[in-house]
Amino acid sequence: MSGKVYLVGAGPGDPELLTVKALRLLRAADVVLHDDLVAPEILQLIPPRAEVQNVGKRAGGKSTRQEEIHFLLVARAAAGLRVVRLKSGDPLIFGRAGEEIEALRRSNIEYEIVPGVTSALGAAAAAGIPLTHRRMSSALVLLAGHCASENWGEDWKRFAGSESTLVVYMPGQNYVELSGRLTAAGVAREIPCAIISRATTPQERVYRTTVAELGHAPHLPAPTLLVVGEVVKFADRDLVEKVSLVPEPEWSIESVFAGETQGR
Amino acid sequence: MSGKVYLVGAGPGDPELLTVKALRLLRAADVVLHDDLVAPEILQLIPPRAEVQNVGKRAGGKSTRQEEIHFLLVARAAAGLRVVRLKSGDPLIFGRAGEEIEALRRSNIEYEIVPGVTSALGAAAAAGIPLTHRRMSSALVLLAGHCASENWGEDWKRFAGSESTLVVYMPGQNYVELSGRLTAAGVAREIPCAIISRATTPQERVYRTTVAELGHAPHLPAPTLLVVGEVVKFADRDLVEKVSLVPEPEWSIESVFAGETQGR
Repeated sequence: MSGKVYLVGAGPGDPELLTVKALRLLRAADVVLHDDLVAPEILQLIPPRAEVQNVGKRAGGKSTRQEEIHFLLVARAAAGLRVVRLKSGDPLIFGRAGEEIEALRRSNIEYEIVPGVTSALGAAAAAGIPLTHRRMSSALVLLAGHCASENWGEDWKRFAGSESTLVVYMPGQNYVELSGRLTAAGVAREIPCAIISRATTPQERVYRTTVAELGHAPHLPAPTLLVVGEVVKFADRDLVEKVSLVPEPEWSIESVFAGETQGR
Repeated sequence: MSGKVYLVGAGPGDPELLTVKALRLLRAADVVLHDDLVAPEILQLIPPRAEVQNVGKRAGGKSTRQEEIHFLLVARAAAGLRVVRLKSGDPLIFGRAGEEIEALRRSNIEYEIVPGVTSALGAAAAAGIPLTHRRMSSALVLLAGHCASENWGEDWKRFAGSESTLVVYMPGQNYVELSGRLTAAGVAREIPCAIISRATTPQERVYRTTVAELGHAPHLPAPTLLVVGEVVKFADRDLVEKVSLVPEPEWSIESVFAGETQGR
């Protein structure tokens, strides 16, 4: 009997933001292969009898190659096991699920995709930001901060002048460079933006600023998301002010220095 | 004692794609105000003692004005009740949640936003389409088929030439016009696209075509979503072929006629 692979979204962090289906599949899994960003509270829901492996790209220095993940998925399912490939957020957004699906199809392994709450939605809910607005933003653009595509800068330029809300996944910590890239792409300097750190977890923090001032933002712990657009002005004041109640975040020497030389 | 309003995403259709939190809140709700598109199977999860109201814009001819929804939310919460405002998909995407949040803040009503699986993710999972792809699509754009913004056409032009995947929410049934609008905006005629109808429900159907041929697509039942982009070529063949196994869908005279005069 052949097994099956479930590509499952783990949601933005809060275990309660797993879907009912994701929870059911996790409880019944024989094998779980998960990314780094999946919260420990979610991994605790997996029954002890299951084989659990972190195949994250940044796992403690040791990174699992994509081909190795494909091999594991195919091998475990071919052995008749129920395999959950658990990805933070939704599996089809910035998760390289496309390549994994191709590998499963090539090997004739049965699979099913279980969507999840993508991080942008968790972050927006955390900060009280409506991502679209009837009078203000007619589209939502999800971008990756790091990308293999050559047309990447070109794409930013296209999106920048639109009425849409931009959400940058994995924006990194170089806010000075990000601010520069956004203004170079044509985003007005006074457009509000927000960095949301560890959304939907107890460590959640929201910092609101503008594109011009982004370079002076404190470095919030990963995973973070950057939301850019007029709609950010609707961010919940009570939520945003939380950030000023926590201890002053650490600044890196590099960012301060870069701010002096590149800031406008 | 004052109550609270929960703006909750109901997900794309399948009750199992509710989040655990959404399910918990529904089971404990005193009042549920829901949109038209929320599946009956989800409404059945609400305990009988709760007050349930369809405040959908298209509800059987009688439509609830936005101001009336605001009044209901505020009045019920002010009476000390736990109110769930249930929206299909995610509450912050094309759901006018921004206006409802403003109304709640004006009245000092406590509220919480509970994100959900937005329809694009349900549709993509249903069709096996990775929405982003490392080699092919570096961004995902979510657009509304109908929009109040004046810059709407301009925005389509911006997005069209990019490497991104476009998902059109509420595309309507005039596929001839949609095809024309996409090509006018600069999307290449051979770019694959897919109409996904009633994603994640037992009535789910997927029809794959190209931007040039979109005008000849069968009219699938609402709610539908249109996915446009190179990634659509990864759509699961087994899933897509389902559409040809079902009875021939009805064609409207208008669309055939429009296809003859406007088709290229």
